[in-house]
Amino acid sequence: MTAHHEQHDIATWTTDVLVIGAGFAGLEVARALGRAGIPAIIVDRRNHHLFQPLLYQVATASLSATDVAEPVRQILRRHRSVQVILGEVEQVDATLCRARLGGGELIAYRHLVLAPGSGHSYFGHDDWAAHAPGLKSIEDARSIRSRLLVAFERAERCTDPDEKRRLLTFAIIGAGPTGVELAGSISELGRRTLAREFRTIDPAAIRILLIEAGPRILAGFPDDMAAYASDSLECRGVEIRTGTPVSDIGPEHVELDDESLDVGLIIWAAGVRPSPLAAQVAETDRGGRAIVDARLMVPGLDNVFVLGDAAACPDAEGNPLPGLAQVAQQQGRHLGPALVAHIRDGHPLPEFRYRSRGNTAIIARHAAIFHHGRLKLRGWIAWAGWALIHVYLLVGFQHRVLVSAQWLSRYLTGYRGARVIDEEVAEKAPLRAGPSSDA
Amino acid sequence: MTAHHEQHDIATWTTDVLVIGAGFAGLEVARALGRAGIPAIIVDRRNHHLFQPLLYQVATASLSATDVAEPVRQILRRHRSVQVILGEVEQVDATLCRARLGGGELIAYRHLVLAPGSGHSYFGHDDWAAHAPGLKSIEDARSIRSRLLVAFERAERCTDPDEKRRLLTFAIIGAGPTGVELAGSISELGRRTLAREFRTIDPAAIRILLIEAGPRILAGFPDDMAAYASDSLECRGVEIRTGTPVSDIGPEHVELDDESLDVGLIIWAAGVRPSPLAAQVAETDRGGRAIVDARLMVPGLDNVFVLGDAAACPDAEGNPLPGLAQVAQQQGRHLGPALVAHIRDGHPLPEFRYRSRGNTAIIARHAAIFHHGRLKLRGWIAWAGWALIHVYLLVGFQHRVLVSAQWLSRYLTGYRGARVIDEEVAEKAPLRAGPSSDA
Repeated sequence: MTAHHEQHDIATWTTDVLVIGAGFAGLEVARALGRAGIPAIIVDRRNHHLFQPLLYQVATASLSATDVAEPVRQILRRHRSVQVILGEVEQVDATLCRARLGGGELIAYRHLVLAPGSGHSYFGHDDWAAHAPGLKSIEDARSIRSRLLVAFERAERCTDPDEKRRLLTFAIIGAGPTGVELAGSISELGRRTLAREFRTIDPAAIRILLIEAGPRILAGFPDDMAAYASDSLECRGVEIRTGTPVSDIGPEHVELDDESLDVGLIIWAAGVRPSPLAAQVAETDRGGRAIVDARLMVPGLDNVFVLGDAAACPDAEGNPLPGLAQVAQQQGRHLGPALVAHIRDGHPLPEFRYRSRGNTAIIARHAAIFHHGRLKLRGWIAWAGWALIHVYLLVGFQHRVLVSAQWLSRYLTGYRGARVIDEEVAEKAPLRAGPSSDA
Repeated sequence: MTAHHEQHDIATWTTDVLVIGAGFAGLEVARALGRAGIPAIIVDRRNHHLFQPLLYQVATASLSATDVAEPVRQILRRHRSVQVILGEVEQVDATLCRARLGGGELIAYRHLVLAPGSGHSYFGHDDWAAHAPGLKSIEDARSIRSRLLVAFERAERCTDPDEKRRLLTFAIIGAGPTGVELAGSISELGRRTLAREFRTIDPAAIRILLIEAGPRILAGFPDDMAAYASDSLECRGVEIRTGTPVSDIGPEHVELDDESLDVGLIIWAAGVRPSPLAAQVAETDRGGRAIVDARLMVPGLDNVFVLGDAAACPDAEGNPLPGLAQVAQQQGRHLGPALVAHIRDGHPLPEFRYRSRGNTAIIARHAAIFHHGRLKLRGWIAWAGWALIHVYLLVGFQHRVLVSAQWLSRYLTGYRGARVIDEEVAEKAPLRAGPSSDA
């Protein structure tokens, strides 16, 4: 009992500001606190900050995992007042101003900045997760990459035409920007890069299905831009099924309302779910996001702030802002200095106003859409706009020039060098022979 | 019975040359066959060729895994007569000229080039493998990298001084070039790169032990050069224990003859064991390597050749050549064109003569040894010689310039960006709290 008692009562660490999550939002806040020399602790389950907008390029073998992941300690090494802890926050007690880590340690804080991000939502079908990985972490990206490449390798070896057809059928569930990017990128990988490397695979036999429950793809974009994206994808051999909810997912098949598809790989890009920590400190909206006011503050708790994907923060019209990297980063850049002024001089906290830098979806090389207010761009020019935004967002990455150069060169040449198949995946999905193995 | 029967009698593929293993030796042979348009199949368990000499830099977070792994298909894509198969050869029947894959497929060949490489040897203690990973594959390197970084992360969080000391004690078993390179690189990582990033770790508390059963380190080098390496390592805080066999290894400890060490990480660099396929086609020496003649041919089988780590090939004095990348590569470059001339025009196969380009061991930045005949180099100049050899060996890597530039910049600046901790490892070795978790 004593040990248990101790564990709950004596804080292992005490800090002015506890930041949970080293994503775009949390990192910006930690940086501002560090610059001001305010004691802070930042906790993340990973030792790295992840540049999520380029994660799909890891999943499709254009970039290496370490290209889009930078150690949190590396980023914050000059900020001596900030301590980085690798760990998982299991519980937050906003009344006692304490957070508990998985190891049992308690962190007592004066201010809490909660920016834990989001995971996947399988809409109540958590058993689908094993068959249809999503794309949120380095492990997710590596898993998709390995499964994708193994499907091609198995197809190359396969002598049964039906099995070969199945292996070369890829289903992407959800046609938001991530789904569209994955579909376009897999199409290029299969028809351009890999086509010349296999001997028994006909590139025309590769089938990519983009399955969306809603009435059209890219719901966040205007109609005409989504139509352009649809056409571009179809030109690249992607079959689009809108208004088509998925009713079941197995290891090698996807059930639609009226059809059962045998597939070699399923990727989930349909839904996200904010971290459950959001609900521990605030009321949540229907999507599980913590309701905060325009100062990013939890109503009734003037020392708790929620940022990024886990927050339902109102825009000027009172509608919640979308879960985008640029929203999270701007929130962090807003709150960081504001919190410093508040802690040091008691300044009141100003309201956050989001300034969109435009929305982009990449379809393939030479094809992208960029939408910013009344500005609508397509094709090359949209792709260039996207590249600019991403180089700008890559601030903080020591090797941003190198990564950009690498990525650009691979993007232009179609070279996909980052094609390591992980052993675990290769073993889980052993290569099978043709007909004889069915016996 | 029918299916079984079929599986054993009907070859799935028939080829002029079957190459097993896409390492330095196998790849060179496949390239020569491809250039000549001779039908060949190359089989490897991995989809990538691995640049093993730089693998320790992946394990110590200097290079990314994909920097040292290039897809085999990519390398051979222009050689239309060569088919690449991802798979594991389980059995070779040299009498019937057939090889069987794990999936059951049979490959019938006219000539066999066996270059399957080697794995670790734990000298009969295979249970040590789980606690002391070796360094042969991408997975090995990632596993060591994750365990190493997790040890530092746990130490940073740890409030128990004894546990902290244990976590920061690293044991490397085996003081050949790989052991020396790992010890030097871990010392630099801990004392140089990570030192400025942690808040509670005293760099002087980091303990690195290099444990060797033999009388001195670097048995393959002259005495004075090994002595120089010893001094250099000791300057960098590495403790060297020669004449010290290991009697037991557990998850957190190493037993020596006279001492039990509590350690945070153990790395195995002590012994290798050739692939068991070697013994299926030839008599083997004490080390399990296939005995071949100077033409790399198995005595009595004039269509079977064994190359690389799995072969005991005699040098001019009749002593077996060492298991080095440059030996394997030269054997491949020798046999490839010779086999083409033999198959096409019935030319006799010439004998292989190894021409050493010199042996190098890297201790740290500014410190290396290079030995070639009577030439002995130390320090910067040796390091430069090593870099030249490796750039030369990197031929075939499309991005060799980029990798060299990256590696050079990271080597010079001490930046270790490739510091992704894999989730599996983080979960297997969960972060623990200080004293309270011992309850």
